[in-house]
Amino acid sequence: MLQNLLKKFQCGERQALAKVISLIENESPLKEEILKDRYFSAGQAKIIGFTGSPGSGKSSLIDELVDLIRRGNETIGIVAVDPTSPFSGGALLGDRIRMQKHGLDKGVYIRSMGTRGNLGGLARSTKDVVKIMDAFGKDWVIVETVGVGQAEVDIMNVAHTTVLVLTPNTGDGIQTIKAGIMEIADIFAVNKSDLPGSDTLVVEIETMLNMKTTEKRWRPPVIQTSSLNGEGLGDLFAAINDHRNYLQENEIYKSMEKEQASTDTMDILEMRWRSYVCSQINNGGPVSHWLDQVLNRKMDPYTAATKILECLIKPETNDSSKF
Amino acid sequence: MLQNLLKKFQCGERQALAKVISLIENESPLKEEILKDRYFSAGQAKIIGFTGSPGSGKSSLIDELVDLIRRGNETIGIVAVDPTSPFSGGALLGDRIRMQKHGLDKGVYIRSMGTRGNLGGLARSTKDVVKIMDAFGKDWVIVETVGVGQAEVDIMNVAHTTVLVLTPNTGDGIQTIKAGIMEIADIFAVNKSDLPGSDTLVVEIETMLNMKTTEKRWRPPVIQTSSLNGEGLGDLFAAINDHRNYLQENEIYKSMEKEQASTDTMDILEMRWRSYVCSQINNGGPVSHWLDQVLNRKMDPYTAATKILECLIKPETNDSSKF
Repeated sequence: MLQNLLKKFQCGERQALAKVISLIENESPLKEEILKDRYFSAGQAKIIGFTGSPGSGKSSLIDELVDLIRRGNETIGIVAVDPTSPFSGGALLGDRIRMQKHGLDKGVYIRSMGTRGNLGGLARSTKDVVKIMDAFGKDWVIVETVGVGQAEVDIMNVAHTTVLVLTPNTGDGIQTIKAGIMEIADIFAVNKSDLPGSDTLVVEIETMLNMKTTEKRWRPPVIQTSSLNGEGLGDLFAAINDHRNYLQENEIYKSMEKEQASTDTMDILEMRWRSYVCSQINNGGPVSHWLDQVLNRKMDPYTAATKILECLIKPETNDSSKF
Repeated sequence: MLQNLLKKFQCGERQALAKVISLIENESPLKEEILKDRYFSAGQAKIIGFTGSPGSGKSSLIDELVDLIRRGNETIGIVAVDPTSPFSGGALLGDRIRMQKHGLDKGVYIRSMGTRGNLGGLARSTKDVVKIMDAFGKDWVIVETVGVGQAEVDIMNVAHTTVLVLTPNTGDGIQTIKAGIMEIADIFAVNKSDLPGSDTLVVEIETMLNMKTTEKRWRPPVIQTSSLNGEGLGDLFAAINDHRNYLQENEIYKSMEKEQASTDTMDILEMRWRSYVCSQINNGGPVSHWLDQVLNRKMDPYTAATKILECLIKPETNDSSKF
């Protein structure tokens, strides 16, 4: 079954990609085996992140960019992250609907992701979906997120180039941009440049960039764009390619890859450690004993954590002076 | 030195509290010893969370509530979480300044927290600061956060009662409220009730609450408030007290305490595990060997994580069938 699916995936069957993504999204037990099997196929795609407030026009901008990329016959995977309200239970499928323009183009694969109440889990799944689109052979993978919090910042760490989309008509200027979001922008797109206030916003961003002290040799360009009249789209595409050249020429791309591999390993190790600890608690035994001590207010959590760690890790490496 | 500080802290010296909070915020090596020492002193305070968008009037509402609480001579600690832009490096001290009204009242202690670029770290520090204010003997601890993301939801888990502050004049209605934020509200405060649209917003929230299927026996009340004319503040205070009675009568409070103790232990265990893994990597040896294999693309991260876990955990508990 799985071998058959993986074979179809390798042959580039669209339905196999859809199936694999669903398995990842649903946290299937097969997920890990698939990601492991396809691990070395990934690493070729150009991964671009688009972030910005709802209504900033990210989807339309991506739509136009997809047109430009498709002219060169390169293939594209798009991952749209839609935070689902755990309250309503329904996903906002707006982006998927809006991007139907490319729905019949076999070279474009679009997938909306919904959170199931846990933004941390979403970040993990999204990274895996990006990787699997890369492994599938997409030349480009574009991730679109609503720029609201740490989870989005985490997601954007998978992107080689992050475009922050801002609009002049939000009426509240640059000050209200969320912490951490400005930091991750490699390119600023001042979208809806046909609206009044666009020039002012550009000046505000440039001023902010001037204030920033950084060792990076890349200064994020600020590009005015409009999906309405097509302004700046060629410039945006050029800036994305420029940034990629910058990453490659300065060996940053290589170190990003290593960083990512290291983070991946540590994340997997941590997940396994967690499930190991959980299984130990469920089995009863010493771990649950120390935890019970805390629950019954007979021991503080610090002492208990020390005891539990001592129970679980190897004695020869168990140098308690480290804790 | 530390013993002296802890003694002053126990005697209720305000300066000792300030010093201890700074040590926590700066991730001092003494932090853990202090929290461990004071662990069993905590658990008495009523912990109330206030969350809502910037400009929703949370601070003014808290200000009025503090007045009501102070009439009963109970003491209050306030923790205001101000996300600092890592871009500007400066903290928004607005709340601290606004709440100066109580600056001379010895029964009120106000502290603003700034993120240093890591929202996860902020959530951890904030929880610890809430606990230490509790351990200091404050009757109430009020946490104020900007309701934007998962980190805020995490922070609010320490609160027994969470008040979500909404305003009618945001012009975008209930739909735009961020995922996860509606979920955590025990009480809805429709603030600035003097503004038009307040009644509509109440109806919207009530409709949403009617749609929600829940096993909880607590239905969040929706209270119209105004710090301008004092409307609804008595009702809000009453609702907070009602919610506390509900938690106690239904033994929910007890299970919340246990849940918190368990989470604390697991969090501490995880932090120690992480620093243990880091120390193993820095020491060279088998862990860094497997990590290097991944970095050199000779091994996938899944296989490497399995190898690393095998290196670190005890053989007798190391049942690889679990992974």
